[in-house]
Amino acid sequence: MDFFEAVEKRYSHKERFLPNPVPLKDLEKIAGAGLLAPTGVNSQCVRLIILPDRAAVQSLCEVSPAIGLSTAPAAIAVLTSSTSQGRINFEMEDYAAATAQMLLAITALGYTSVWLDSPYFDGDRKEAALKVLGVPPGYSLRVVLPVGLPEGPGNRRSKMSFEERVSYGAFGKPKG
Amino acid sequence: MDFFEAVEKRYSHKERFLPNPVPLKDLEKIAGAGLLAPTGVNSQCVRLIILPDRAAVQSLCEVSPAIGLSTAPAAIAVLTSSTSQGRINFEMEDYAAATAQMLLAITALGYTSVWLDSPYFDGDRKEAALKVLGVPPGYSLRVVLPVGLPEGPGNRRSKMSFEERVSYGAFGKPKG
Repeated sequence: MDFFEAVEKRYSHKERFLPNPVPLKDLEKIAGAGLLAPTGVNSQCVRLIILPDRAAVQSLCEVSPAIGLSTAPAAIAVLTSSTSQGRINFEMEDYAAATAQMLLAITALGYTSVWLDSPYFDGDRKEAALKVLGVPPGYSLRVVLPVGLPEGPGNRRSKMSFEERVSYGAFGKPKG
Repeated sequence: MDFFEAVEKRYSHKERFLPNPVPLKDLEKIAGAGLLAPTGVNSQCVRLIILPDRAAVQSLCEVSPAIGLSTAPAAIAVLTSSTSQGRINFEMEDYAAATAQMLLAITALGYTSVWLDSPYFDGDRKEAALKVLGVPPGYSLRVVLPVGLPEGPGNRRSKMSFEERVSYGAFGKPKG
């Protein structure tokens, strides 16, 4: 898919997925797109866990319920390694850039997803998720991306206009 | 350009740019790709300032020298609004996702760039940059993206293997 078409089509899918499985080669292509995102001082601190089928996603849902995952046929968990960081920590930027690239890759392959982090803000659910995913100390679970075909078209949320968010030469200066 | 081709081609250009100007419509297309990135709770906190020509970039370089900008024919400054945030702050993720999408858009249009934030870690240079960009209180300057054609091919940095960073079903578990 054309790059700009993927950008236009991506949205946050907060509804149900179809049960159709996602081929592993597609999940690996999505993961690969995430790993090619830039990282601060080339730390490459992002780690991914592919949950390749409904059973793997279900194991996570059972200990750490997340509405966005409850019907997803596959998912990718995004973690960062705190040990691979230098003096200045870019973990937030690094996982976000990788996640943005994976959301676009998911869209480019005809699937849909959503940036799912709120279930893991809760300490107990996060601990349970880390346990079922077998994550050792020194790694943080940042987000889980469901991957699948949408059951319906999904809602797009309204956006501010380009003119409200972009200026020219200096802040607040319109095109002139 | 195909989405995955853009992902493969993107790299951090830390060398010189050609002086060829970048048409404003290309800069706006890049900015538009950034604004379509997801933001936490749809805050849309990212703001962009297009520096459309060498003169505009030069004004920034004069007060806040940055090697990556010194030959760039155009640039886009990325800011976040702290006032548009809710209880939980996603500014870091939001600007990073927008920046990742813009770096890919720059690549898809045949230009090159680099995630340039280190000049603005220095308090004095950051203050000077905010002043020349006319940024009011309540906004943070996050990164400046040069945009232009590279003078040479640019160095790609080495990357860890896919297998070192991706596991299946649980952390550290290889494909099986």
